[in-house]
Amino acid sequence: MSHLYKHLRIHQVFGANTDVGKTIITTALVRASAINRNRVFYLKPVSTGAPQDADDEHIKRHAGPQKHLVDAHCLFRYGDPVSPHLAVKMASETPGGLKVSVPSDETFVGSVAEHIRKRARVASGPGHMYVETAGGVHSPTLSGTTQLDTYRPLFLPTILIGDSRLGGISSTISSFESLLLRGYIIDSILLFRDEYYRNFEYLTQYFAERGTHVTALDPPPPRLDSAENVANTEKYYSDLVPDTLKGDIFTALEHLDECHARRIEELDSMPRRALDAIWWPFVQHGLVKTEKDVSVIDSAWSDFFSIYDASSEQTSPSQPKSLLQPQLDGSASWWTQAVGHAHPTLALAAANAAGRYGHVMFPQATHLPALKLAERLLQGPGNGWASRVFFSDNGSTGMEVALKMALRSFIVSSGLKLSSAEKKNLGVVGLRGSYHGDTIGAMDACEEGVYTCEWHEAKGYWFEPPTVSIRQGRVAVSLPPALSSLTSDQRTVEGFETLSHVYDVEQRLESPLAKHYRQYLDKYMRALQADDTRKLAALVLEPIVMGAGGMIFVDPLFQRIMVDVVRDPALFPTPLRAGPLLGVNPDISVNAKILTGGVLPLAVTLTSDRIFSAFKSESKVDALLHGHSYTAHAVGCQVANATLDLVDGLVESNLWVGAIGKWAPEGALATRVWSFWDPEFITSISCLDVIDEAMTLGTVLAIKFKDNDAGYASHSAQTLLQSLRLPLDNGSASAAPGGAPFGVHYRTLGNVAYFMSSLNTPRATIEALEDRLWRLVSGVRRS
Amino acid sequence: MSHLYKHLRIHQVFGANTDVGKTIITTALVRASAINRNRVFYLKPVSTGAPQDADDEHIKRHAGPQKHLVDAHCLFRYGDPVSPHLAVKMASETPGGLKVSVPSDETFVGSVAEHIRKRARVASGPGHMYVETAGGVHSPTLSGTTQLDTYRPLFLPTILIGDSRLGGISSTISSFESLLLRGYIIDSILLFRDEYYRNFEYLTQYFAERGTHVTALDPPPPRLDSAENVANTEKYYSDLVPDTLKGDIFTALEHLDECHARRIEELDSMPRRALDAIWWPFVQHGLVKTEKDVSVIDSAWSDFFSIYDASSEQTSPSQPKSLLQPQLDGSASWWTQAVGHAHPTLALAAANAAGRYGHVMFPQATHLPALKLAERLLQGPGNGWASRVFFSDNGSTGMEVALKMALRSFIVSSGLKLSSAEKKNLGVVGLRGSYHGDTIGAMDACEEGVYTCEWHEAKGYWFEPPTVSIRQGRVAVSLPPALSSLTSDQRTVEGFETLSHVYDVEQRLESPLAKHYRQYLDKYMRALQADDTRKLAALVLEPIVMGAGGMIFVDPLFQRIMVDVVRDPALFPTPLRAGPLLGVNPDISVNAKILTGGVLPLAVTLTSDRIFSAFKSESKVDALLHGHSYTAHAVGCQVANATLDLVDGLVESNLWVGAIGKWAPEGALATRVWSFWDPEFITSISCLDVIDEAMTLGTVLAIKFKDNDAGYASHSAQTLLQSLRLPLDNGSASAAPGGAPFGVHYRTLGNVAYFMSSLNTPRATIEALEDRLWRLVSGVRRS
Repeated sequence: MSHLYKHLRIHQVFGANTDVGKTIITTALVRASAINRNRVFYLKPVSTGAPQDADDEHIKRHAGPQKHLVDAHCLFRYGDPVSPHLAVKMASETPGGLKVSVPSDETFVGSVAEHIRKRARVASGPGHMYVETAGGVHSPTLSGTTQLDTYRPLFLPTILIGDSRLGGISSTISSFESLLLRGYIIDSILLFRDEYYRNFEYLTQYFAERGTHVTALDPPPPRLDSAENVANTEKYYSDLVPDTLKGDIFTALEHLDECHARRIEELDSMPRRALDAIWWPFVQHGLVKTEKDVSVIDSAWSDFFSIYDASSEQTSPSQPKSLLQPQLDGSASWWTQAVGHAHPTLALAAANAAGRYGHVMFPQATHLPALKLAERLLQGPGNGWASRVFFSDNGSTGMEVALKMALRSFIVSSGLKLSSAEKKNLGVVGLRGSYHGDTIGAMDACEEGVYTCEWHEAKGYWFEPPTVSIRQGRVAVSLPPALSSLTSDQRTVEGFETLSHVYDVEQRLESPLAKHYRQYLDKYMRALQADDTRKLAALVLEPIVMGAGGMIFVDPLFQRIMVDVVRDPALFPTPLRAGPLLGVNPDISVNAKILTGGVLPLAVTLTSDRIFSAFKSESKVDALLHGHSYTAHAVGCQVANATLDLVDGLVESNLWVGAIGKWAPEGALATRVWSFWDPEFITSISCLDVIDEAMTLGTVLAIKFKDNDAGYASHSAQTLLQSLRLPLDNGSASAAPGGAPFGVHYRTLGNVAYFMSSLNTPRATIEALEDRLWRLVSGVRRS
Repeated sequence: MSHLYKHLRIHQVFGANTDVGKTIITTALVRASAINRNRVFYLKPVSTGAPQDADDEHIKRHAGPQKHLVDAHCLFRYGDPVSPHLAVKMASETPGGLKVSVPSDETFVGSVAEHIRKRARVASGPGHMYVETAGGVHSPTLSGTTQLDTYRPLFLPTILIGDSRLGGISSTISSFESLLLRGYIIDSILLFRDEYYRNFEYLTQYFAERGTHVTALDPPPPRLDSAENVANTEKYYSDLVPDTLKGDIFTALEHLDECHARRIEELDSMPRRALDAIWWPFVQHGLVKTEKDVSVIDSAWSDFFSIYDASSEQTSPSQPKSLLQPQLDGSASWWTQAVGHAHPTLALAAANAAGRYGHVMFPQATHLPALKLAERLLQGPGNGWASRVFFSDNGSTGMEVALKMALRSFIVSSGLKLSSAEKKNLGVVGLRGSYHGDTIGAMDACEEGVYTCEWHEAKGYWFEPPTVSIRQGRVAVSLPPALSSLTSDQRTVEGFETLSHVYDVEQRLESPLAKHYRQYLDKYMRALQADDTRKLAALVLEPIVMGAGGMIFVDPLFQRIMVDVVRDPALFPTPLRAGPLLGVNPDISVNAKILTGGVLPLAVTLTSDRIFSAFKSESKVDALLHGHSYTAHAVGCQVANATLDLVDGLVESNLWVGAIGKWAPEGALATRVWSFWDPEFITSISCLDVIDEAMTLGTVLAIKFKDNDAGYASHSAQTLLQSLRLPLDNGSASAAPGGAPFGVHYRTLGNVAYFMSSLNTPRATIEALEDRLWRLVSGVRRS
């Protein structure tokens, strides 16, 4: 991940094209840095072509009067003067030659990161480092990934060398935009002053309007560094970088130094400024005492944040650590991340829709991103039951829409003539621990509790659910007292062989437990129906897991039977219904969070035709008069479509096949449920003394600690896992890109700690987190 | 705006750089199109360099056996072989030469559009058109704007000519991304097959993964078209485009034809598919009878949609119109657009944040886009009173947050010990016609009405407001009966010299009307306070104009006095308050809609420190436990920052200065309020018989038609203005980019039609709409 040191300014040098003078201008920068008495490190990670022509050799040759301060290196060298991906291929194809293996992007980035870390330790006084890429911004690296994507995890501030030739305005601006698209910070553009094409003139103004500094430098003599004119070349550099420390190159250098200093200053100021200006959601500001309590996220990539830690350099001046440290985004940023942060495909999708539409008015209109997304969702989660997609902005508004749909269609289909007061009192049935979003209407579909506000009115009835977990290594369904009392031996726990047995709902429908559930629900639902104060209009469920309620995995059989009971025409003449994955289809469903792959808010409410028809008439006032300004915004829809494409591509991936394999060693039935987390890890951790129970499905891992003071106010999980936030250095390369030690950002819900991966988190990352959790929690047991 | 004809496939040819073979490959395409018996039109809008070397000449020379089918043109010619912006500059600097004027982007695009329209009429059978740009995608045009921005209003599907040279992988991919960023449809990439660098191999795979077709063609002989080898050149083309109609160029051609056919097919299918899959907000589907009732928005730019009209080609086969027509976005897409659709700066800002962060978890964290936006808002609308920014996703959730803040801080600061029932009954004071968003909590802060759902409970009291409008050419404040009865002569209307006099609230505070307002509000507020069933916790106002309620411009003096009265400690010991622009500061304010310049949803709730403190303690459960998954998403915040930069740049623009000048001919006082709409137009239209009243402020124009059946269900405005939606061809170039006739997309609220501009809508566009409205409405009077 990112590297930032106070004493060592690092810039990565990208070119607007090949042959634009990247190495020449970098040589001038190196020379100027050295004349300014900086320790200078030059790194060319990949070099192609004849060794004597290599850029690091050129740098050494022309490093100038202070060349003893300059260190120039290359990490991977290939003889053919072609693009790196071809050079490595040609090298491996050399008949009789040694077999050359192509390093993966991870290995490659790891080598560069390691080199940077070493140099940061070597540099005692102030230093400058230049990492020069090969060719243009999108030239392929050894693996074939293009450079700006390969280097992105390192997130180094960049210098773009512009193109001074005919056509160079275009390639310079396009390269700039490709860098911006990956989030790069572009501190400076440097190019040659070509007096005929005058690109520098145009570009200086163009980028001034965009806040980026441009420096034009005298062009080199025509045939640089040919054997006969090394002297000319040296003369060129000494003119460009005069001993007087005056001139454009020094202005550029000063600007780069300023950018570096300003960046650190800004990062340093951010916690204080955030404490002064921001009101965070779900945060008790009275408990955020100091600046250290604020995470400064400088960038993010894949499953990691890059966070600023002002204390890094101070801990050990002789072993300076980067001020930016990787931190694993252990809650997938509130369950929003599907394919990792800052995925270039999603950034490009967002840009494309913004550039084609911006946002366009949606009522009675259509555009491709929204239409394609709607159709795709109807064929996906809506397959077999849904006919309509209603767009809104987040899960909470999606639920408000769902509730409005449910209430109206209940009235229409029941044919009941209700008074205004009776309408206000229409109720829902649900489960204790439900959470449907923070807006007041969505909240009213839940019980009163710590999350609810003054206006909250609990409009319904909520059953205590039986829950699924792994306790002491055994898969168990825990029964609440009301259900326990119905069993022959008053047992509170029912054991299962595997998780898949629990989720084989059809198979379980005839079990004794199913009978108890049915008997219980039937009885209480009848009682509720008999009570005239509140007519029940809808069953509202979070299928499978209730997140905010404490990562409660509800016994799917119980949810299924709830649906069956409310759909029993003898009991409810015209009930509404919800709950997918239970072998039954809902009437209305809401999707949000990972829908956009973790980029921006968008929600959809899917419905059946029956619900839709309840609003259809010849009168405008019967319509669903709900809509947000940005309904079906093109940017969100396009990003969602791109996300679904990426997820489709994962289904057959080694990652998924591997995870499924672990959970289904014996084949068919067992594949009913699986998780990205290791089954043995879950089993083992559930046996530890401090653990009450553990559970996992898909991307989620939930660990419930034993705690007498449970509930939302509890801090037990937080206290036990506190050190998880700190980087752990075990001496070898970590799973973070670049291999730096990393801390873990995670969320707790009282005594439950939960962790979520993306849908493409590498196994090594999850394993690293499992290892740390294990050591931490089993350590607690031992102490 | 866009051009699309069934019988004429048009592609714009962009180059990944200069000198990549754009003209050679276009020549091959032209030749292949002609051999395939298409009428072929080649257009090079700008040509630089010697006339005999011009690309249109080259095309004519090598158009092949069917050259009689080929028509090749150039619109602007300059002698110097440099970038167009320099060529036109050099031409204008030629000593003794003719003064060459630089066409504006509008003129330039108008010429190209006119050329296309003419050719579309000429082409009888099937035809192909190639519009070849100059240099790379970002090479400057004559005005200096780069090509892909200049041509963007025409939104032609594109062919990108890739770069087969060393470094060409990078420039090809970067150029592709710059095109995508502007929303362009890229149907095909063509490049030379260079067997040494093999870029075509890499790019074919790279773009296959991204769904874009790549074709590699044999490279030309080394010295193309030099005098001695015209024959060689001709041989090259005849090999590349053989009479057999076989080979790569024909595969490419077929692909382009398919793309064209598929695009039209898709557009044609969209209304049906939308009717089958979408549930629109605020739309009675029972009234959307046919496919013609659905707007298909293919793209948008500036203040215009580009909409698909299947009937265009059928109306007059001899005078075919484009299947895509401009339509003025007359409601600024529900008041979301600040700087016009698809602004490249905002698209780039969105991409940059997506590429740097994606979305990152916000509680107790900070990142630059959110922090900068928060600070900026505190210094802007929050200046002098607000200390905190709370982020959410749309105006409705922003209001839910505001209400939760208001309720809690009322309880804390009043020190009242309220029962749960009393808390549920806490009320707000407001105005009739208020609308605070569609979620149920926000709705509960308004009266019951057509927008409210079954669960709605009107938690408060709403006063009928006096309103501001222009009636029969006179500025008037209309008083509701309760207020009218307090005046000495029971008058229902009070006249004012100018709108600015109405909005000079401080000046009016001592007027007799102010006395009446105060007397009235004081009396009724006392009565409300005396009623124990509902304690009043907050005054909730939409300052100045109530939009959804019918574009009601409330007398600002009345709102100001409401604030003063609720802040009177004798009356309310600890009231909350809201209402900016009234000479007083609110305690809480909500901003959304144009905050992101019309790209994506984001809302902020600003608050004073007193409100913030009411939630501060040492206990987590006292915190504001409200938050959406994408709280403070980086993409939205970055786009909002970019929008605020753009708006800052407009403040001193000729556009604003001009508009203010019209409203303030006599200086200081009059600048208190102004509008982008013409004052004389408003005055005149308000005098028409069918008009009840009109009003404007800022970007908004509201026209209230006389109608016996007013209210939300009324269709009177819609009926009267119906023809506004149809393109009006008055024989000359319209204000739409490219000059095509355009219809107007607008929204009505019962008998009120409203129109909104962006903050940078050109005066010509507003004037065109004023002209159409005038003719339409005064025509109605005459009939």
